[in-house]
Amino acid sequence: MHRSMFRAAPRHLQSATRLPVATGSSRNASVRGYATAFNWEDPLVASDLYTEEELAIQDTARQYCQERLLPRVLDAYRNENYDRKILEEMGELGLLGSSIEGYGCAGASTVASGLITKEVERVDSGYRSGMSVQSSLAMTGIYEFGTQEQKDRFLPDLAKGKLSGCFGLTEPNHGSDPGSMETVAREHPIKKGYYSLSGAKTWITNSPISDLMLVWAKLESTGKIRGFLVERSRCPPGTLETPPLKNKSALRASITGMIQMDDCPVPKENMFPDVEGLKGPFTCLNSARLGIAFGSMGALEDCLSRARTYALERKQFKGNPLAKYQLIQKKLADAATDAAYGTLAATQVARLKDQGKHSPEMISMVKRQNCDRALHNSRVLQEIFGGNAASDEYHIGRHVANLFVVQTYEGQSDIHSLILGRAITGVQAFV
Amino acid sequence: MHRSMFRAAPRHLQSATRLPVATGSSRNASVRGYATAFNWEDPLVASDLYTEEELAIQDTARQYCQERLLPRVLDAYRNENYDRKILEEMGELGLLGSSIEGYGCAGASTVASGLITKEVERVDSGYRSGMSVQSSLAMTGIYEFGTQEQKDRFLPDLAKGKLSGCFGLTEPNHGSDPGSMETVAREHPIKKGYYSLSGAKTWITNSPISDLMLVWAKLESTGKIRGFLVERSRCPPGTLETPPLKNKSALRASITGMIQMDDCPVPKENMFPDVEGLKGPFTCLNSARLGIAFGSMGALEDCLSRARTYALERKQFKGNPLAKYQLIQKKLADAATDAAYGTLAATQVARLKDQGKHSPEMISMVKRQNCDRALHNSRVLQEIFGGNAASDEYHIGRHVANLFVVQTYEGQSDIHSLILGRAITGVQAFV
Amino acid sequence: MHRSMFRAAPRHLQSATRLPVATGSSRNASVRGYATAFNWEDPLVASDLYTEEELAIQDTARQYCQERLLPRVLDAYRNENYDRKILEEMGELGLLGSSIEGYGCAGASTVASGLITKEVERVDSGYRSGMSVQSSLAMTGIYEFGTQEQKDRFLPDLAKGKLSGCFGLTEPNHGSDPGSMETVAREHPIKKGYYSLSGAKTWITNSPISDLMLVWAKLESTGKIRGFLVERSRCPPGTLETPPLKNKSALRASITGMIQMDDCPVPKENMFPDVEGLKGPFTCLNSARLGIAFGSMGALEDCLSRARTYALERKQFKGNPLAKYQLIQKKLADAATDAAYGTLAATQVARLKDQGKHSPEMISMVKRQNCDRALHNSRVLQEIFGGNAASDEYHIGRHVANLFVVQTYEGQSDIHSLILGRAITGVQAFV
Amino acid sequence: MHRSMFRAAPRHLQSATRLPVATGSSRNASVRGYATAFNWEDPLVASDLYTEEELAIQDTARQYCQERLLPRVLDAYRNENYDRKILEEMGELGLLGSSIEGYGCAGASTVASGLITKEVERVDSGYRSGMSVQSSLAMTGIYEFGTQEQKDRFLPDLAKGKLSGCFGLTEPNHGSDPGSMETVAREHPIKKGYYSLSGAKTWITNSPISDLMLVWAKLESTGKIRGFLVERSRCPPGTLETPPLKNKSALRASITGMIQMDDCPVPKENMFPDVEGLKGPFTCLNSARLGIAFGSMGALEDCLSRARTYALERKQFKGNPLAKYQLIQKKLADAATDAAYGTLAATQVARLKDQGKHSPEMISMVKRQNCDRALHNSRVLQEIFGGNAASDEYHIGRHVANLFVVQTYEGQSDIHSLILGRAITGVQAFV
Repeated sequence: MHRSMFRAAPRHLQSATRLPVATGSSRNASVRGYATAFNWEDPLVASDLYTEEELAIQDTARQYCQERLLPRVLDAYRNENYDRKILEEMGELGLLGSSIEGYGCAGASTVASGLITKEVERVDSGYRSGMSVQSSLAMTGIYEFGTQEQKDRFLPDLAKGKLSGCFGLTEPNHGSDPGSMETVAREHPIKKGYYSLSGAKTWITNSPISDLMLVWAKLESTGKIRGFLVERSRCPPGTLETPPLKNKSALRASITGMIQMDDCPVPKENMFPDVEGLKGPFTCLNSARLGIAFGSMGALEDCLSRARTYALERKQFKGNPLAKYQLIQKKLADAATDAAYGTLAATQVARLKDQGKHSPEMISMVKRQNCDRALHNSRVLQEIFGGNAASDEYHIGRHVANLFVVQTYEGQSDIHSLILGRAITGVQAFV
Repeated sequence: MHRSMFRAAPRHLQSATRLPVATGSSRNASVRGYATAFNWEDPLVASDLYTEEELAIQDTARQYCQERLLPRVLDAYRNENYDRKILEEMGELGLLGSSIEGYGCAGASTVASGLITKEVERVDSGYRSGMSVQSSLAMTGIYEFGTQEQKDRFLPDLAKGKLSGCFGLTEPNHGSDPGSMETVAREHPIKKGYYSLSGAKTWITNSPISDLMLVWAKLESTGKIRGFLVERSRCPPGTLETPPLKNKSALRASITGMIQMDDCPVPKENMFPDVEGLKGPFTCLNSARLGIAFGSMGALEDCLSRARTYALERKQFKGNPLAKYQLIQKKLADAATDAAYGTLAATQVARLKDQGKHSPEMISMVKRQNCDRALHNSRVLQEIFGGNAASDEYHIGRHVANLFVVQTYEGQSDIHSLILGRAITGVQAFV
Repeated sequence: MHRSMFRAAPRHLQSATRLPVATGSSRNASVRGYATAFNWEDPLVASDLYTEEELAIQDTARQYCQERLLPRVLDAYRNENYDRKILEEMGELGLLGSSIEGYGCAGASTVASGLITKEVERVDSGYRSGMSVQSSLAMTGIYEFGTQEQKDRFLPDLAKGKLSGCFGLTEPNHGSDPGSMETVAREHPIKKGYYSLSGAKTWITNSPISDLMLVWAKLESTGKIRGFLVERSRCPPGTLETPPLKNKSALRASITGMIQMDDCPVPKENMFPDVEGLKGPFTCLNSARLGIAFGSMGALEDCLSRARTYALERKQFKGNPLAKYQLIQKKLADAATDAAYGTLAATQVARLKDQGKHSPEMISMVKRQNCDRALHNSRVLQEIFGGNAASDEYHIGRHVANLFVVQTYEGQSDIHSLILGRAITGVQAFV
Repeated sequence: MHRSMFRAAPRHLQSATRLPVATGSSRNASVRGYATAFNWEDPLVASDLYTEEELAIQDTARQYCQERLLPRVLDAYRNENYDRKILEEMGELGLLGSSIEGYGCAGASTVASGLITKEVERVDSGYRSGMSVQSSLAMTGIYEFGTQEQKDRFLPDLAKGKLSGCFGLTEPNHGSDPGSMETVAREHPIKKGYYSLSGAKTWITNSPISDLMLVWAKLESTGKIRGFLVERSRCPPGTLETPPLKNKSALRASITGMIQMDDCPVPKENMFPDVEGLKGPFTCLNSARLGIAFGSMGALEDCLSRARTYALERKQFKGNPLAKYQLIQKKLADAATDAAYGTLAATQVARLKDQGKHSPEMISMVKRQNCDRALHNSRVLQEIFGGNAASDEYHIGRHVANLFVVQTYEGQSDIHSLILGRAITGVQAFV
């Protein structure tokens, strides 16, 4: 059965025809006597680095996102209302856990996976967060560190979006420094073969709607961090609460909450067997972070595209379009450049990862830089809209608000700069 | 009666005792052998430039804002819900039109007026917008350009906040370039002694709740822009609509709307008698802009204060407060510096204005720079909060979102840079 | 003879063994359980994108530059003294016109050519300028637009560095706008078969020592810009002057001058046969600009390397190396990121060029961005040296001064942003 | 005698008539109906904050600097050649130690002193350094901490510029952290009543031409830092060397050197009597730093003025002056704003100092911010000159190079941000 799923997924992924947007403008190359004309949507021709299959996967994702996600996002954002069905839709298309081999997953390249992420975040970083937590955090964790039984039990339904997963690492008092976590797992005092988990996790995407929570806790007997698969359906009343965090100033199209565990019993076979310490969560985070390096470029490209359209349509001073003004053109040129550079860099790291040649610091570099530049440029592009930027129908304000959080989570920019600083100098400056 | 009001207002303003915050930390000056210790809340001792009366007025305003406005802001912002009573409360304290002489206004200095603005925006830029539109735009317009009868009829009730005023200049297709406005005033075809106004204004603070709208329109017979006082109660059904603009991404604690006029009859005696062209609206805008130069510093100071508190309370890595880290301290130092500089500059321009030595370009300079720096620093300070910045209870996200609009309205930053560029070079670069 | 030269050059280029610097730190990859450790000198493993031959060429160039150029640069810069022999040394190694096929040139890829440029500019932007003017401007011009006879006569000796070439486009009053040039070529009133050139070119690298000047002038009869090969040895006294421009504040290790022509006779067979207008000079400039995109990254990498070393060796406050401080680490992380991104982007455009898939706007993008980021980061890194930055023996001040000019010439950053803005919007904003 | 000198100095200072530049453009105020027109050279009318006497002093200084210093600076900078006579000329005009009461000094306000500094640095930061070391460092040190005898012996000749003083604090291995200094003062083993000083100071302005060196050293018996007045004429051969540091990349119009002391005998009466620790040197530095806050604004104003002139004269693209382009105007507007803000802030701190209401952190704030902004804006303005910026005759490159050092010395920008961070948070982050 896995096998047929495995084959089905790529078929779905490849069935779409490539959207005209990305290639259309390169047709008139000969006008200037150059083989290729400048395509503002892909200025440095990153598409040249992708395989046909990768481009086909990107097209499938793009088509889905533009046709199915974009129409829902305004309402979702206004009302902090995430549609649970999105996970199933993504699952049907093979977008979840797309780089995993087997278990009904597409087994696509890391690059393809990044391109999916980019297309989702082109619509909304919150939608991308909802996908990332399922794919990069929950599924990657199980795939990399789970027992064969854990994989067989959970991955297929996670891949289909029938199960919703989340990832519990951050605690209220420990954001950038997860090693100090307080959540603890003890031998359950009563239930044999169970651990008892206590502690609180916060800012957990999808926790209020999750069926399966990958929770990191310190095993009391060793003091080492271990991973536990907490199944909501098996938690007795009062041992698990997942209250939502409302009134967020960003990522409102995703649902966020806490995981509060009070002597919550978890079967011993739900603990990851071998991985100890921060290696487990950091492996998952690295997968997610690389996705963010792609995704943030999608959001930035959307800002650029919308700003360009606005600048061409909006007239000020003697009927000139805003696009005619130097100060506007500079903003567009800067954004296009950073989007092009960031896409190349994320692609390079994804390629290296597929070849086993990557290191976590490379991911820190592209996560940090792409988020920083996406945030910076989206803010600058927002200025083009003048007062109209305050209207959510122009979408730019939503991207700007989202990208601040995207820059902040999964390693705040400054933290990544210290990770890089340590790698460059050999000296740590965290404390 | 005016007289007693006039006296009453300052009495209210002076009755409060100065809040301890601003002066407390300067007590331990002698510790370092300097007469004055460094007070991070007023690093360059701007308070030294203010009179006792001005400081008293600031205290009154601060006390009101912190005690009465701050508790309301979260709910107002979440629900886009402006409490109409705020205007009356401000009126009672003499905060409206505070620099106007007579008509029940406080007749305070421009500096005092700026300090009031600063205290209101320390809570929320939307609340400040609601006050600015009443004071600087509607009341200043009438006071500077109205007939004696117009002043007598409207100013006292505007000063008390019993009448709510607004200011209609910006149109849907003409933001930075109001000279191209399309709203027109014709001889009314039927009603003798009336003009008929047609056209639409947008992004008008308080328009949905305004009783009196100062609307700028082109007089058909001359082609010149003139000012009209449109009284809602006297507009026949169907001639005036003021629909709110909802789902704003910022300034949600203020109410914003359109003014749609369809052959709206306005008595001829409601037109400003002499002022023609952009001089009228620009005089009002200059008054408001100078207020914004103060107000944005209030918002920035609040961001700084909250970020400082957070940095001292939040511990990461071996129990150190965030405040211990160099990258955090630099953010705080930068923000404190820009707040101090901006306050000095706004104060200087206000002093010059009271002496009749100012020019509009000076106001462009301080409006632009203070907004730019407030926005930039608030964003950088927001990083200190990490993921928690997304929770509106930390207030910083609200300031950041607001300050973007504040930078944009009443002259977008780039437009002011071209105004300054023209003043510096004698050459215009708008087109 | 050409043939043997042609073979000889690559042999030289390949003979060197790769310097240990770039690969050394990747040995301890397994320490962290990743196949590849982070190498701060090539954080995103650009080397993975190069062929063995390209890496060998880079090594040859690097070895020459570090061993032969670096020891000369301090004295050259102090005294504005360019050693003419450098061209011959470069010629011997095959570094000149390295991407040209035939004529004794190496026929290497555009990428390899870029890597050579990077190595030269790692030492000094002035030395790179001296090479660029020979290779990208003079030789590329002749190779692309010259008659077969012109190629046969000049390219082999230019490739060997026996002839020194330069490129006369910029005029005293026409920098960013060469289309307005005033230099004119007329039928020579006396000498049959000759044109007579009059006009002045300025900021011409190598003009005072050039034997052969590629000068662009407007042909009087058509008003079109044409290219002329002016041989110094054939110019009668008083018709050609090439005074040096001294007391430069940067690029002092290169020699710069004017080309002043006063009825200077040039044989008609020395005019390029077909190319008219700005296409000719812009083709050359595009070649040079792509080189600068690589070269500026070399200069930045050198700044980073020197700053890192200084930060590790310099102790302040309780014996900590500067490298231990967060504010220092952030500067290093930023610079390493921009160097890595810029190298990837330049490489991508060079690959596209070798495949005929590039456009001039791509080159504008990487020239502009890489120069901007190299300049910005070099200045930030300079801060690490404190007062010692003022000593030329730390080299960083020289790079900073050079990179300002590199950002400015061959298309000032703002001009390239308008080129990009036009390509993005379809609207021009130059005037 | 002191008295007559004292009176003479102000007379000189007041004799000049105010230069027309600063007031000329405010004549046409009425054009716009405002009492005051915008004066790009003093946009926020800082001149309104100065007394007649202060303005007269500024005029004297400006006249001298423009007429006597400016013509010398190009040659001095090219050849690293400081004209010793400048000190005497400044002394004659009363510009040295101008805020000191008595001893032939002008006894002017701190503000006046700052304005002098501004005028000198408007020409060159190196010339200002030469004056600062004499006035703020050497003379202030003696005036604040010297015995009456020391004051009587040295101040009058220092004020006249007959004696040249310098200030030895920084050591080769201790820049930002002078508390770790290694220079030591011991009881002289042979000469009774003498200390023996050993150690090296570096980056000492004027040391090679100084007659009198204020050297800070640790007194061996207490381990505390003390101040010593080292008279060159009384040092036996071999005990004092002051080799110049040549080939500087900036401040080349000032002379810089080391102070190398090898058992150098200094009479006990040449030690400052009471001051111990860093209080002494920091008091002097604070005086100098406040001067730099003014001076850097002078340099920035000169850059602005030169860039504005260039932008008006230089034509590109269809004959438009550069000043017509938006990207140019923004650069000018930014620079004018920062210059105006910085001048106000420096003035405020100087006023506070004269009233005894200042603290060192205020000086850190204005020194840091004004240097940062001067450096940043001068670099941006430099872009306006395009390639011509490389010619020293446009002066801008010199300012840019100088301002980097000015930002760095007397407290590098980052160090001041940590001083401010400590003052804001109460937590230190130096180590």
